[in-house]
Amino acid sequence: MAISLNEKYLKKFLSDSEVDKIWPQVEAAHKTIYEKSGYGNDFLGWVDLPFNYDKEEYERVKAAAKRIRSNSKAVVVIGIGGSYLGARAAIEYIKSPFHNELDKESPDIYFAGNSISPAYLNGIIKLCDGKDLTVITVSKSGTTVEPGIAFRAFRKILNEKYGEAEAKKRIYCVTDKCRGALKKFADEQGFETFVIPDDVGGRYSMFTPGGLLPIAVAGVDIDELMRGAKDAAERYSKCDKDNACYRYAALRNILYRKGRSVEMLVGYEPALLQTAEWFKQLYGESEGKDQKGIFPASAIFSTDLHSLGQYIQDGSKIMFETVLNVENGGDDYYIEKVCGDFDGLNYLADRGMSEVNRKAYEGTVLAHTAGNTPNIIINVPGMSAYDYGCLIYFFEKAAGISGYMLGVNPFDQPGVESYKKNMFALLGKKGFEDMREKLEKELGE
Amino acid sequence: MAISLNEKYLKKFLSDSEVDKIWPQVEAAHKTIYEKSGYGNDFLGWVDLPFNYDKEEYERVKAAAKRIRSNSKAVVVIGIGGSYLGARAAIEYIKSPFHNELDKESPDIYFAGNSISPAYLNGIIKLCDGKDLTVITVSKSGTTVEPGIAFRAFRKILNEKYGEAEAKKRIYCVTDKCRGALKKFADEQGFETFVIPDDVGGRYSMFTPGGLLPIAVAGVDIDELMRGAKDAAERYSKCDKDNACYRYAALRNILYRKGRSVEMLVGYEPALLQTAEWFKQLYGESEGKDQKGIFPASAIFSTDLHSLGQYIQDGSKIMFETVLNVENGGDDYYIEKVCGDFDGLNYLADRGMSEVNRKAYEGTVLAHTAGNTPNIIINVPGMSAYDYGCLIYFFEKAAGISGYMLGVNPFDQPGVESYKKNMFALLGKKGFEDMREKLEKELGE
Repeated sequence: MAISLNEKYLKKFLSDSEVDKIWPQVEAAHKTIYEKSGYGNDFLGWVDLPFNYDKEEYERVKAAAKRIRSNSKAVVVIGIGGSYLGARAAIEYIKSPFHNELDKESPDIYFAGNSISPAYLNGIIKLCDGKDLTVITVSKSGTTVEPGIAFRAFRKILNEKYGEAEAKKRIYCVTDKCRGALKKFADEQGFETFVIPDDVGGRYSMFTPGGLLPIAVAGVDIDELMRGAKDAAERYSKCDKDNACYRYAALRNILYRKGRSVEMLVGYEPALLQTAEWFKQLYGESEGKDQKGIFPASAIFSTDLHSLGQYIQDGSKIMFETVLNVENGGDDYYIEKVCGDFDGLNYLADRGMSEVNRKAYEGTVLAHTAGNTPNIIINVPGMSAYDYGCLIYFFEKAAGISGYMLGVNPFDQPGVESYKKNMFALLGKKGFEDMREKLEKELGE
Repeated sequence: MAISLNEKYLKKFLSDSEVDKIWPQVEAAHKTIYEKSGYGNDFLGWVDLPFNYDKEEYERVKAAAKRIRSNSKAVVVIGIGGSYLGARAAIEYIKSPFHNELDKESPDIYFAGNSISPAYLNGIIKLCDGKDLTVITVSKSGTTVEPGIAFRAFRKILNEKYGEAEAKKRIYCVTDKCRGALKKFADEQGFETFVIPDDVGGRYSMFTPGGLLPIAVAGVDIDELMRGAKDAAERYSKCDKDNACYRYAALRNILYRKGRSVEMLVGYEPALLQTAEWFKQLYGESEGKDQKGIFPASAIFSTDLHSLGQYIQDGSKIMFETVLNVENGGDDYYIEKVCGDFDGLNYLADRGMSEVNRKAYEGTVLAHTAGNTPNIIINVPGMSAYDYGCLIYFFEKAAGISGYMLGVNPFDQPGVESYKKNMFALLGKKGFEDMREKLEKELGE
């Protein structure tokens, strides 16, 4: 079963002819990608990655994951942005947000190096205490501050716990093929390394070892994940109006040009929470530039119907919703019957929560569209690794198409450097002395 | 030390005279609250709650928390929206997001009844397996679907585990004073009950037993929390231009009227994540009505500088940031020196991460304001229960003032009912038959 789009709840907001009218832009974007003729064309490696990934390395990923699973009770994945969001999102979706607590066959997986909070790092260190430990560090350069600090911390812990020789066998680096400080250091030290290809950016790196190794360590069948990605890559390679992925790109651009500046990604399973974070990076970073772009937000329903629901229903009409409708969410729970029916819920007794959740979804879509918030529905068959591979590729391809339709380079992120440069200057890093003086003056004013 | 506002980074976007010009609206909102003359004036109980809460009941909260801490290894807090967000946010801020894993003196605290996902409920049930268990259910009516299903599930578990007599001693209900299905049932069964006052809405209920009991169970000194709330209530009771809380309300209204439709609450500590969720309910539900209101979003930096940072820096100029600048984040971590300096980070060696985090904050504020995103800075002295009490009251009071300035009723949430009614109809609840037919037709079209 493939991902499908339900456009029924858009009828009130746009017509089929609007899709026709914008379609030449979809075709142009498609051409730009396949002819590699646009801005950012050095970063199109993700397009065919599900076909032409390095098969030998892929087997090494699986072997490493097997080894780590057999000799570790805790695994710290060090990375920031695209170097951790994909793995985290996949593990929570395919396994469970309670993976660490409930899967006693797999090591606990912690994400570090994605924050400069000492409280957070101290917390992760304590969580690893007394557990056999492996470290996977994911960084093209190896010089980024956040993962750099964490890598120093955990390498010290490994060295103290196991001695340098054994520690070296417990450090895996996913990094540049030949350049960069981390690659050089890893080769000197003898850490096993894996490659993030030059032409794949961080937010498009789920199907590189940066995503695959931690996902495999969690016990996910990555063959199935890749099979899903491959099927999706085939399915969405043709530019016709049945291409759900391209239609999604078209629809969100139409809504944006009608003044819908916020896209809220909505799911009805808490297991989608981190997928929404991954989505927000993919779309925010691909499109938020040149003073343009849809602002990506997210919510988990029905939870957040009791927080953001009021706003979506009756607030400013600046948003549209994209609903991830997972058709099969896994094991059900049947509602208890209660003698006396004190809470008036016996009409739900012996029915599955999945049915109630489905009715909440249907009721919400009808309520929100009646309240003038457009809803794009993306039907996802289930929560398997295969389904997830399809979904991730769907969003990646749509982001590329959508970004070109918006008229930006979907594959750079120049704005991310601004805060870093300021931070370097304020920290007194060499080469930033002039800037430091200027910034400290601004802060002092 | 009190919360303070830093308006320095707004200079480019608004002038002092704009605050002067809007101030009569602040005064009018203040008057509306204290004269109880506005829409929603039946729900102003939160204003003086830090002074006139029920002292006898408060002692019972502390006694119950002590009892629960002594006889339970897991506590399930059942509630949705304002009935869980406050407690969860406070525990993560004051204790830690790793509270359950790291504080072995306190019971694990799980939040249920805030979702209709069977996977989520099944997960929480498994997490409680084999642990001595208490259930705290927080619901004015007791008939809300999500907490209702969870309460049925966990009452059955308690009954099977302990027998009905002992189970009754392990169920605590925070509910209406005399009305409502839950109050009636609790009295029949002999569960200990606590009161959510009639004039305090869910999103303003942190300082009622709905927030206080779970917070106290986590081992937080709620006397300190209430002392902070009381000091803030005094501090923000006068309508003058030194009132930081009122100024914040004024500033966000000015920015909104200049076209800034999204407010992003930003923090540099992962421990602020759930506080941002609480904030989003408070502001989204108070202001998102009559097709108006600022859309509340959130981010944790530097983490999300590597996902949403690009958008904030260079994307559509529809937002402003409100930065929670926590001046003392707790225990530090000192960065390791590395022989050879392979990653070029030795200039940070032996310095605290808190210093690096501070420079990231300063560098980001300068970068984002240079990129034309206004930044309101709220300085919060620390992460104690006292600091948190101040902060929560600050936001509550500002939401009331701000909502009246916007011209809405800040204390109702009529839009939340829309999805519920649809869901009831689609589930075949009695009394909704006509609606069901209509909705099913819409779905089937």
